Amino acid sequence: MVVTDARGAATTLIGDFARRYPGEMAREVERLPDAAAARCLRSLNRPQIAAVLERLTPDTAARVLLRLPDDVARSVLMAIDPARAVSLLDWLDPSAHERYIGMLDPRTAGEIRALAAYPADSAGRLMDPRVTAVREDATAREALTRLRLGRQPAGGDIYVVDSEGRLIGAVTAHDVVAAALTETLGRLSKPRAGVLAVATRDEIMERLSGSAVAALPVVDVEGRLLGVIRGATLINVAQEAASADIQTMVGASRDERALSKVSFAVRRRLPWLHVNLATAFLAASVVGMFEETIARFTALAVLMPVVAGQSGNTGAQALAVTMRGLALREIRPRHWLRIAFKEGRVASINGLAVATTTTAGVWLWSQSPGLAMVIGLAMVLSMLAAGLAGAIIPIGLTVSGQDPAQASSIILTTVTDVVGFLSFLGLATLFAAML
Amino acid sequence: MVVTDARGAATTLIGDFARRYPGEMAREVERLPDAAAARCLRSLNRPQIAAVLERLTPDTAARVLLRLPDDVARSVLMAIDPARAVSLLDWLDPSAHERYIGMLDPRTAGEIRALAAYPADSAGRLMDPRVTAVREDATAREALTRLRLGRQPAGGDIYVVDSEGRLIGAVTAHDVVAAALTETLGRLSKPRAGVLAVATRDEIMERLSGSAVAALPVVDVEGRLLGVIRGATLINVAQEAASADIQTMVGASRDERALSKVSFAVRRRLPWLHVNLATAFLAASVVGMFEETIARFTALAVLMPVVAGQSGNTGAQALAVTMRGLALREIRPRHWLRIAFKEGRVASINGLAVATTTTAGVWLWSQSPGLAMVIGLAMVLSMLAAGLAGAIIPIGLTVSGQDPAQASSIILTTVTDVVGFLSFLGLATLFAAML
Repeated sequence: MVVTDARGAATTLIGDFARRYPGEMAREVERLPDAAAARCLRSLNRPQIAAVLERLTPDTAARVLLRLPDDVARSVLMAIDPARAVSLLDWLDPSAHERYIGMLDPRTAGEIRALAAYPADSAGRLMDPRVTAVREDATAREALTRLRLGRQPAGGDIYVVDSEGRLIGAVTAHDVVAAALTETLGRLSKPRAGVLAVATRDEIMERLSGSAVAALPVVDVEGRLLGVIRGATLINVAQEAASADIQTMVGASRDERALSKVSFAVRRRLPWLHVNLATAFLAASVVGMFEETIARFTALAVLMPVVAGQSGNTGAQALAVTMRGLALREIRPRHWLRIAFKEGRVASINGLAVATTTTAGVWLWSQSPGLAMVIGLAMVLSMLAAGLAGAIIPIGLTVSGQDPAQASSIILTTVTDVVGFLSFLGLATLFAAML
Repeated sequence: MVVTDARGAATTLIGDFARRYPGEMAREVERLPDAAAARCLRSLNRPQIAAVLERLTPDTAARVLLRLPDDVARSVLMAIDPARAVSLLDWLDPSAHERYIGMLDPRTAGEIRALAAYPADSAGRLMDPRVTAVREDATAREALTRLRLGRQPAGGDIYVVDSEGRLIGAVTAHDVVAAALTETLGRLSKPRAGVLAVATRDEIMERLSGSAVAALPVVDVEGRLLGVIRGATLINVAQEAASADIQTMVGASRDERALSKVSFAVRRRLPWLHVNLATAFLAASVVGMFEETIARFTALAVLMPVVAGQSGNTGAQALAVTMRGLALREIRPRHWLRIAFKEGRVASINGLAVATTTTAGVWLWSQSPGLAMVIGLAMVLSMLAAGLAGAIIPIGLTVSGQDPAQASSIILTTVTDVVGFLSFLGLATLFAAML
């Protein structure tokens, strides 16, 4: 039967592709509806399914898993990195979760339960407990045997522990191969500090900064080696940690995900919206001081958003660049004067340029040289203030021990609105005769 | 002399610390003024200086380098990873740059020049050209000899190439040790795709996503192996790429750094400020439509910033969470309906809550139930629109082939201002009799 042969050939081809490029395959599977994704995976053998499943986003992986036969799901869960298994099982409802864990062999089930006991987002949750370690009194010859029989060491590192299992350092397979066979590992090993299993993602990133290691050993409070966070996981953590600022700056929680529950999102965002409301009333009260001027010249009300918008965006640019510099540790709070000076100059130049365009536009529109002059002046002043505020707010938050991103955008908007309205309406009141 | 002894002891201690914890040492040095930093480093031996210098931020490293004696600078530049040397030398003015390159041995100078020829931020700039590679027809025995004599392979991977130097795959030291000595590497190697030397950071991150590798081989257009990007570099790249969105969303360039030149910052930011100016005039024209209403009720002008501020912040929260989900590939454009539905529900609930507070506050302040009702209604409407816009803008940018972050904040502000002013002033005009 030709059809069957063609199907057979297609299946072989898909299997070959999955074996060689599990990452690419995962990306394709990710695009399919769940039923089709499960069907596609079922045409593969179990190690191939495991390799692809491991590379899917956890929620897709969980939904696909539910559609696989139990015996396949069982062997896949036992084959993948236990940390991946934990994050995947986290997406299942509790009964399905328990059912799958019950199917596993006691060792894997124990590993998964142990990892799941660590707080979400801690080093303990991210580590692979199947770490290659040797005792410090072992010889290079013994380590070679270990290497020959054992699992692939993470990032090529073999960890060296003392008789109590405490982490002493690391050697690479290269070090072991290059050493004399009778050399002990204690002498070959280079010091390597572990990270605590309860360390948060931010603490992990702090530890990695300025370090040249590509895998991170995880220890308990006694210093005993518990596992290793592999390089690929560290890259994921780095991306997640580095992109979280975008959320905290507007008062959304670091922990919220695009598909988080509505109740979670509301609970975390609403308090900051109320803070923002209070500051908005502050800005409104500034406008309120000039109600009489506005009653006489309603054009001021029309142009208010232009001044506030420009200074808001100027401040947001300075804030973004400064905050990122702090996050990447390219600048430190002691650089505040240099940063403020740079941002002040950028804001002045941009302010003069934008003010020129605005003055010309307003002159044409209103035929009032006075109004054009007032808005131009207000713009330069408020953009300068915004640039300085954008530079200083994240540095100030850092110095006072806060996350430099925390609600920085809300604080900045308050500053730019207040300064924008004050300078524009204030100057208008001052030069009222000319309007 | 006790003082000298104490100094000697201190120097030994610092040297020991630098050897064991070069990353920590670099963090301490980073905090010192340049002269003190150079003095501190000069108390170390050259390999120690190299280890610390390699972990400093490039601009600090460059300034410290200028304060080291030429012979020390020379051996340090030859000892560090050439990709680091390139990024460090980039911070020097052209004459100092040429002088240092001229001091190096021809091989290192050639390597540095070759790397510097690649575009900034390309894979070629980031790679270490000193990569461990073996021919596919070599035996495991030959590979072991290579391992014994050669450099530390990146992430434990040894790359396998054909007779033309084209990348075929990778084996780990573990694979080589575990194999029969007569096995050829061609048979042991697992397929591994390289990234092109001209690939951008974003292309590198795209390649890494869903992959479990911790080091990335770099190839030319013929597929010939040129170098390897090490795990620690990949983590830096991941952080930089993931944090760049914060800048693009407000119209600052991805490439701007906190201490970039003023001219560079102005050139990249000013065009977007002008775009923002155009959209601000659009928002102003909406206000202009209601000038008569404002002339009658100046309280409207006072409260305008409150409505715009709340919808702006609500939209920014939805935008931040959605944008991050897209960047981390947790959601895809085809999820748009689910995302919009979630953000719509969050915005409605938050809108009702904030509107209740605002209505009560405005009622107390103005004693006008009509005004309180109008602002409450306007707030719910504009916050709902803002939440939906925040979800849909980054998805729309992605679908149309743009960077989901590019100026998203500027587009969002336009939408929230226009909708905010339109709903507030429109409802006020409609219910003018009740104000």
